[in-house]
Amino acid sequence: MKHLHPERAGTYGAIALLIVAAVAPASAESSGAERAIRAVLTAQQTAWNAGDVEAFMSGYEAADSTTFVGATITRGYRRVLENYRRRYPTKDNMGQLTFSDIEVMPLGTGYASVLGRWHLARSASGGGDASGIFTLLFRKTADGWKIILDHTS
Amino acid sequence: MKHLHPERAGTYGAIALLIVAAVAPASAESSGAERAIRAVLTAQQTAWNAGDVEAFMSGYEAADSTTFVGATITRGYRRVLENYRRRYPTKDNMGQLTFSDIEVMPLGTGYASVLGRWHLARSASGGGDASGIFTLLFRKTADGWKIILDHTS
Repeated sequence: MKHLHPERAGTYGAIALLIVAAVAPASAESSGAERAIRAVLTAQQTAWNAGDVEAFMSGYEAADSTTFVGATITRGYRRVLENYRRRYPTKDNMGQLTFSDIEVMPLGTGYASVLGRWHLARSASGGGDASGIFTLLFRKTADGWKIILDHTS
Repeated sequence: MKHLHPERAGTYGAIALLIVAAVAPASAESSGAERAIRAVLTAQQTAWNAGDVEAFMSGYEAADSTTFVGATITRGYRRVLENYRRRYPTKDNMGQLTFSDIEVMPLGTGYASVLGRWHLARSASGGGDASGIFTLLFRKTADGWKIILDHTS
């Protein structure tokens, strides 16, 4: 079998590079997005477990359109924060939060959906253990990936 | 005041057209997406109220990845359908479904998020009235806009 003519090899090399250039960014971008989003969730968990609700809330977009869906619909970063403060007034009530089974699904380049489970380990006086499922909608903002919609049940 | 020179008027006209051309498609596209998504939800409501669970299910993507989040996580179109059939075995159990307060938020061009409320008017024997909130994730597929994730609480 003949060796490839250098010029042909060069052409194949160029084509291979073009394919890599065309394919890599999207995949690198979405895994970068996934990494960034997982980092937001990890930071939220850490903040919660330090009793720092404000730092926990920095995972949400600081906007009037930020929405939390629980038993009711709460709109606006400020109101979501107030609800967390009212519902978890002490560190004992906050307990120790663990997120698990996190799945990140990029939706194009600017949004992502997250599905996961939450578990709160709490003393009986803090309200006892609690757990559930959440779906989040993240948006890539100038300040990084932020939660714009949280449905927790 | 002098009239605009015809050539200048023509230039302004061309610029105006370019602005319209640049702005209109995105807005027309997203309102088209919203219309299409609302039509899917209306069709689901009609199908449900006719006791046709299969037709109701055609609002979901017929894929293994289709996910329903309720008290638990159910994956796959077939299993979601089976759950509906098990949970609502008779027309009396299905009752009359009404969606309300529907908000559609386009996420780029291929996805959209929907927030809304559901109400089931049922006889006491059917289980009585029930209601709640849902968040949906729609994807634009070759078969039109389909639900890929439903979180109902």
